[in-house]
Amino acid sequence: MMTIREKTKRTIERYNMLYSGETVLVGVSGGPDSMALLYLLMDIRNEYGIALKLAHLNHGFRKEAADEAEFVRKTAVSLGLPVIISSIDVPAIKETDGLSAQEAARKARYAFFAEAAEEAGASMVALAHTADDQAETVLMRLLRGSGPLGLSGIPPVRKISSQESGGRRQGPIIIRPLIECSRKEIEKYISERNIPFVTDSSNLKMDYMRNRVRMELLPFLEGYNPNIKETLVRTADVARRDNEFLDMEAESAYQSLIPHPSSFIPTDNSGITLDFKVLKKLPEAVSSRVIRKAIKAVKGDLKRVSFQHISDILSLMDYGEGKWSLHLPDVTVSREHDKLLLKRGEGRR
Amino acid sequence: MMTIREKTKRTIERYNMLYSGETVLVGVSGGPDSMALLYLLMDIRNEYGIALKLAHLNHGFRKEAADEAEFVRKTAVSLGLPVIISSIDVPAIKETDGLSAQEAARKARYAFFAEAAEEAGASMVALAHTADDQAETVLMRLLRGSGPLGLSGIPPVRKISSQESGGRRQGPIIIRPLIECSRKEIEKYISERNIPFVTDSSNLKMDYMRNRVRMELLPFLEGYNPNIKETLVRTADVARRDNEFLDMEAESAYQSLIPHPSSFIPTDNSGITLDFKVLKKLPEAVSSRVIRKAIKAVKGDLKRVSFQHISDILSLMDYGEGKWSLHLPDVTVSREHDKLLLKRGEGRR
Repeated sequence: MMTIREKTKRTIERYNMLYSGETVLVGVSGGPDSMALLYLLMDIRNEYGIALKLAHLNHGFRKEAADEAEFVRKTAVSLGLPVIISSIDVPAIKETDGLSAQEAARKARYAFFAEAAEEAGASMVALAHTADDQAETVLMRLLRGSGPLGLSGIPPVRKISSQESGGRRQGPIIIRPLIECSRKEIEKYISERNIPFVTDSSNLKMDYMRNRVRMELLPFLEGYNPNIKETLVRTADVARRDNEFLDMEAESAYQSLIPHPSSFIPTDNSGITLDFKVLKKLPEAVSSRVIRKAIKAVKGDLKRVSFQHISDILSLMDYGEGKWSLHLPDVTVSREHDKLLLKRGEGRR
Repeated sequence: MMTIREKTKRTIERYNMLYSGETVLVGVSGGPDSMALLYLLMDIRNEYGIALKLAHLNHGFRKEAADEAEFVRKTAVSLGLPVIISSIDVPAIKETDGLSAQEAARKARYAFFAEAAEEAGASMVALAHTADDQAETVLMRLLRGSGPLGLSGIPPVRKISSQESGGRRQGPIIIRPLIECSRKEIEKYISERNIPFVTDSSNLKMDYMRNRVRMELLPFLEGYNPNIKETLVRTADVARRDNEFLDMEAESAYQSLIPHPSSFIPTDNSGITLDFKVLKKLPEAVSSRVIRKAIKAVKGDLKRVSFQHISDILSLMDYGEGKWSLHLPDVTVSREHDKLLLKRGEGRR
């Protein structure tokens, strides 16, 4: 049996997460997962030549929030590490931006990590997502039908986009060193080392679907496959590998389909034109992703665009010479002669 | 709402299943699914310009089997269609070839369809798999952890390989016109049209896992997503699209890595040599599939080769200059200098 320390190191090496000389900002809620991450990184920091700083975001949702922030501050002091603590008013963001509580919290969290990383001179932000979180995510995506892209789950390493980081040119990289460790292994580590933590009740309340998957569906599936969590984590790995390659292929096809900035229609009639014949010659695995990229470029995001919409477009593309239009949420896709036009607005469904 | 007839036609057109002038051999067990398929194909045969013949395989497992064969024979007579009926002794194949009952039945079925198609002058064999079968298959593969490849489920159209057809050069094409219709729609059609059928009890006994997924897991998941079956069918579609492209890429990479037949080691030391550096430069989505192809070529199949094995090989490939060997079931994969060697035998796990 591998120890959790060995497993974490294996994950770090498998995904090239750490470089000597870097400062890593550790996102610490004060809960068991993030406290275990912090102690594990402390334990290996000399080996990897990294410096650690803590970051805590006070969500301001619950009255325990102030106590949690205080716990994280004291932890940092006792460990002799710098800490950045910030408060946000998620309900206010929710109100202003018309987002769900979860979307608002997510948006605030990423913007905070980007800002705190800049302030701390850290190029990396370590988060404490576990194999259990991964398995839950994969199942939730499968139930929702978000396709193979969704099945790739939580990425072990990813860049915070410039949009997510509030327009910063250079967003930090998110790393998840515990993504292959189970919650059970973490609990064992926490109790063996007597690591203090606060019980974070927010997880249990905020995401109803995730909790149902965790408490009810995963235990049920263990009746079919006792190693279902590991199985789902591996499925996510393979799906991610496939998607990265397919996305690379789609990106280069997309770039070649939009060779000049002039093929972008000006903003007042904001849209994109793709060469229909070239698009039709691509394998569907690639053309479907090129269409998603074009929709995202026109609409700003892919919200409410299902893979059924994309399949409908691919089916329509098979219809001889005729003209057609398809109304998606906030986007209209139409064929005119040898062009596929994507325009903002006019969405009907 | 689409009728089942319209839905079947949509599936036939979406996957280009039928060509005018062809003879289609319909696999008829006598159960509701295959009887619905038969009547639907009868209904549209003039529209598509196809001729129909029936094929029935008597599995010889159960005592009702003879009655079922007789039912199918009478059905063919009453409909004025030719029929080919054959018996096999699955338990005997199971014994001789050391296969599970399911593997033996499957092997016998495919060999029979290939033989019957040749005899009937049919280039296509229509089978009655439904959207329910598809959803069950996707879930079983997910539980087993067979990765995105497994998630593509039952193919709506596929060629019977020369191996499966008992060495025939030209195996028939399997088509599944009901793959997007639910069992519920089929039951409704059967009862509305008063189509006779026999209750096939073999399905219920032969595949314990599938039955558990059908009776217990799918209804449970409907509590999370009432349209879970449709969701899984669409997931399979998208996964299949992605896999077809990835497999094409891998096939061409594989061909270029084995440029001359001379790179195959003779049979007494049967193996394959791949250029290590070229292989390492491929994206993992492609190199993982190239390695699978090489293992299959050496071993004859991919049985007991998990995606963990493939991941282990990919991980080892990252280890500097060193020599290493990995023992898989019936295959040893090793690196020697700038070559990856795959040899039959010596498998230890």
